[in-house]
Amino acid sequence: MELTHFDPQGQAHMVDVGAKPETRRIARAGGRIVMLPTTFALILAGTAKKGDVLGIARIAAIQAAKRTGELIPLCHPLGLTRVAVDFTPDASAHAIDCETVAETFGRTGVEMEALTAVSVALLTIYDMVKAVDRGMAIENIRLLEKSGGKSGHWTAAPK
Amino acid sequence: MELTHFDPQGQAHMVDVGAKPETRRIARAGGRIVMLPTTFALILAGTAKKGDVLGIARIAAIQAAKRTGELIPLCHPLGLTRVAVDFTPDASAHAIDCETVAETFGRTGVEMEALTAVSVALLTIYDMVKAVDRGMAIENIRLLEKSGGKSGHWTAAPK
Amino acid sequence: MELTHFDPQGQAHMVDVGAKPETRRIARAGGRIVMLPTTFALILAGTAKKGDVLGIARIAAIQAAKRTGELIPLCHPLGLTRVAVDFTPDASAHAIDCETVAETFGRTGVEMEALTAVSVALLTIYDMVKAVDRGMAIENIRLLEKSGGKSGHWTAAPK
Amino acid sequence: MELTHFDPQGQAHMVDVGAKPETRRIARAGGRIVMLPTTFALILAGTAKKGDVLGIARIAAIQAAKRTGELIPLCHPLGLTRVAVDFTPDASAHAIDCETVAETFGRTGVEMEALTAVSVALLTIYDMVKAVDRGMAIENIRLLEKSGGKSGHWTAAPK
Amino acid sequence: MELTHFDPQGQAHMVDVGAKPETRRIARAGGRIVMLPTTFALILAGTAKKGDVLGIARIAAIQAAKRTGELIPLCHPLGLTRVAVDFTPDASAHAIDCETVAETFGRTGVEMEALTAVSVALLTIYDMVKAVDRGMAIENIRLLEKSGGKSGHWTAAPK
Amino acid sequence: MELTHFDPQGQAHMVDVGAKPETRRIARAGGRIVMLPTTFALILAGTAKKGDVLGIARIAAIQAAKRTGELIPLCHPLGLTRVAVDFTPDASAHAIDCETVAETFGRTGVEMEALTAVSVALLTIYDMVKAVDRGMAIENIRLLEKSGGKSGHWTAAPK
Repeated sequence: MELTHFDPQGQAHMVDVGAKPETRRIARAGGRIVMLPTTFALILAGTAKKGDVLGIARIAAIQAAKRTGELIPLCHPLGLTRVAVDFTPDASAHAIDCETVAETFGRTGVEMEALTAVSVALLTIYDMVKAVDRGMAIENIRLLEKSGGKSGHWTAAPK
Repeated sequence: MELTHFDPQGQAHMVDVGAKPETRRIARAGGRIVMLPTTFALILAGTAKKGDVLGIARIAAIQAAKRTGELIPLCHPLGLTRVAVDFTPDASAHAIDCETVAETFGRTGVEMEALTAVSVALLTIYDMVKAVDRGMAIENIRLLEKSGGKSGHWTAAPK
Repeated sequence: MELTHFDPQGQAHMVDVGAKPETRRIARAGGRIVMLPTTFALILAGTAKKGDVLGIARIAAIQAAKRTGELIPLCHPLGLTRVAVDFTPDASAHAIDCETVAETFGRTGVEMEALTAVSVALLTIYDMVKAVDRGMAIENIRLLEKSGGKSGHWTAAPK
Repeated sequence: MELTHFDPQGQAHMVDVGAKPETRRIARAGGRIVMLPTTFALILAGTAKKGDVLGIARIAAIQAAKRTGELIPLCHPLGLTRVAVDFTPDASAHAIDCETVAETFGRTGVEMEALTAVSVALLTIYDMVKAVDRGMAIENIRLLEKSGGKSGHWTAAPK
Repeated sequence: MELTHFDPQGQAHMVDVGAKPETRRIARAGGRIVMLPTTFALILAGTAKKGDVLGIARIAAIQAAKRTGELIPLCHPLGLTRVAVDFTPDASAHAIDCETVAETFGRTGVEMEALTAVSVALLTIYDMVKAVDRGMAIENIRLLEKSGGKSGHWTAAPK
Repeated sequence: MELTHFDPQGQAHMVDVGAKPETRRIARAGGRIVMLPTTFALILAGTAKKGDVLGIARIAAIQAAKRTGELIPLCHPLGLTRVAVDFTPDASAHAIDCETVAETFGRTGVEMEALTAVSVALLTIYDMVKAVDRGMAIENIRLLEKSGGKSGHWTAAPK
């Protein structure tokens, strides 16, 4: 079994995708941040009334998706055609779930763009409420679904 | 309870830290990526012989720490004086643990730098082995310790 | 009337342009900076003899056009095929007029690239002569013309 | 009269500020975007209910302030200690006024950071509503006040 | 003889490549860094055992290739489809030779991407061993070969 | 002999400079680009009359110096207080010599900033005249002088 990011001598390279056809490619990723019940209440209150934590995290996530190629060393730069970011509060676990979708029409997949968007969304939430809750944890960042390209449609196994 | 990143009208701002003294500030953060046993073996073999996944993830993490202020909207830009990134394989869980330390001498803390470094380290590992294991999950990104500044020394509660 | 940058729930997203055809797209934008007569004379003298303020502003504008997608949160990243920046002195108003053209072959327009180039050109002029004239004003940044894409050819109404 | 950004041979350089003392420096800048009455109503409605145009423009402005040194060729890089962005609707002119404040503790002023924040705030508003109003104009971007450093306190003349 | 990066008035612009066809384009570039014999031995030892100078330089080079359009003012932004970086030690000259390949499928060549990758690879080597050898010199950065586009296949004359 | 960029286990890190005092630090670097006599004449003519190749290369170099910390993985980010770039034509060798100076007041040296500025200056010259001379070579990029910090004053041996 070989890792494609390394050549036969074990040296890293940005893989040649020049011969791949351009196809529509979609990736969906998820993750969550778990916090104290009081912090959870503060974020939900803020979103409705003042201090829109989730709105700011959404913008940070969209912007980060566009910079994935700068952050992840061997990622190909690519032109995203769509990025969307959704948050769902989970009151029972006092957690915020984040789900992102990234799309392109190109020669390589957008999993890393969707995953980077999730990560930066959750880091931004952490940043904005850390003054009241340093012990928050970011959990379960993973790919949920991908389609397009040679490997076809893939869906994460239910957890 | 107020979120410092918002003014009394609920509008986001970059908080005024101009009156804070410059002190030495340190933050330590952690996280892990869980994978299939075969993927775990592949990374460990690669590090020793060829295809240095963890070496590349370490560089990506250090570079990302320097760009935290570009990724997290309300973070203050700051001049890091040290960044270190360690990986520890956990064979029983076929997971790689990552721990980072960030330091500065300045007016604001470096928690976000340490947390961003962990996140990008784990995303880079995901990127490099995703061709053989799409179902990996990034878990438990959290602050472990911080010191310096008005809030003093803080250590995460044991899990 | 709906704003396309928001979904039906009012949440920002980067609009899906994946289904749009790739066409040649051009945008032209303008703006001006108004200054003291002595400052105006200094810039014109400098351009001819030494201290090429406008030459530097032109380079800054071209470079900024390439980074529009990083600055404007919901802009799609795109590959520009042409950027040009022209300056015209207006002696009667002791102002410098700036006009930019941006082009691409893609799925989305380049208005923001042309407008960002104008803005950064004028800010750079401000920066370079601010030591002698802090009261300069940047005026009338606007789209002049656009073509390509579904909305066809558009020209600004004469002022 | 000399422009400090050029040496005696007329060649651009980043001015030596190494001998200047570090002082607290503040700059305040303003600007506005003028639009159709229907567009103005749409933005105000959106802010209250859904589609928070001004909230997103505020975040874009704060992030742009941090990148001023990358956009303006001869600006010194500096560590901002505060950025704030305010919007005031002007119903009689169906315009949105923007005012920014930037602060640092350093060897050089923050006028360009405040002006860059205004420019990007207004460009972001343009981007988000351009689908319904291409003829908007950005007007009167200017420095309002600055303090700190050798040149002392400066306030713009009333218009 | 005209320089294409300037218009007939001598003003810089980003050349219009909109009418060029998209073709596969490849560029290969080279360069070297010459050092003391003891430094040379240290790098080679490090690569095998600990302190992988060349592995880090390779990652820096790949990342820099992706940012060429930000560094070189009149370069078109483009989506690289491949980047590879090779190092060859030259024991007789106690030098490390670096050779890079960049590829894209687009309207403009990738010479600058290959040359930027070489430059940053060699600068990174300098950075990592400068504490023991400040007198190293970077030599002979040049294009070795290019193909694709109107100008066809070109190979550097043997030196 | 140890390389400071690696810890005792051979893992890269950004070296801890938190305990170093802030001092004034200066670095001077040089390099050259060698070309055909006709290309050399074209650049010199252009600078005087139209097509200011060297003026644009100077701006690119100053901007690149500010981004050194993003390009060189283990460099500390720092706030430059001065950057200057000079070009000297060498008619006998039909070469352009470039010399840069970088300064800061901080905890770490600015050699890499001066060297990065030289490299990008020469790459930009290459870019702007490559259409008429693909065989140019960049030669002899090296540190010329450094002062400040524990290691004191250092000057390159004459060649």
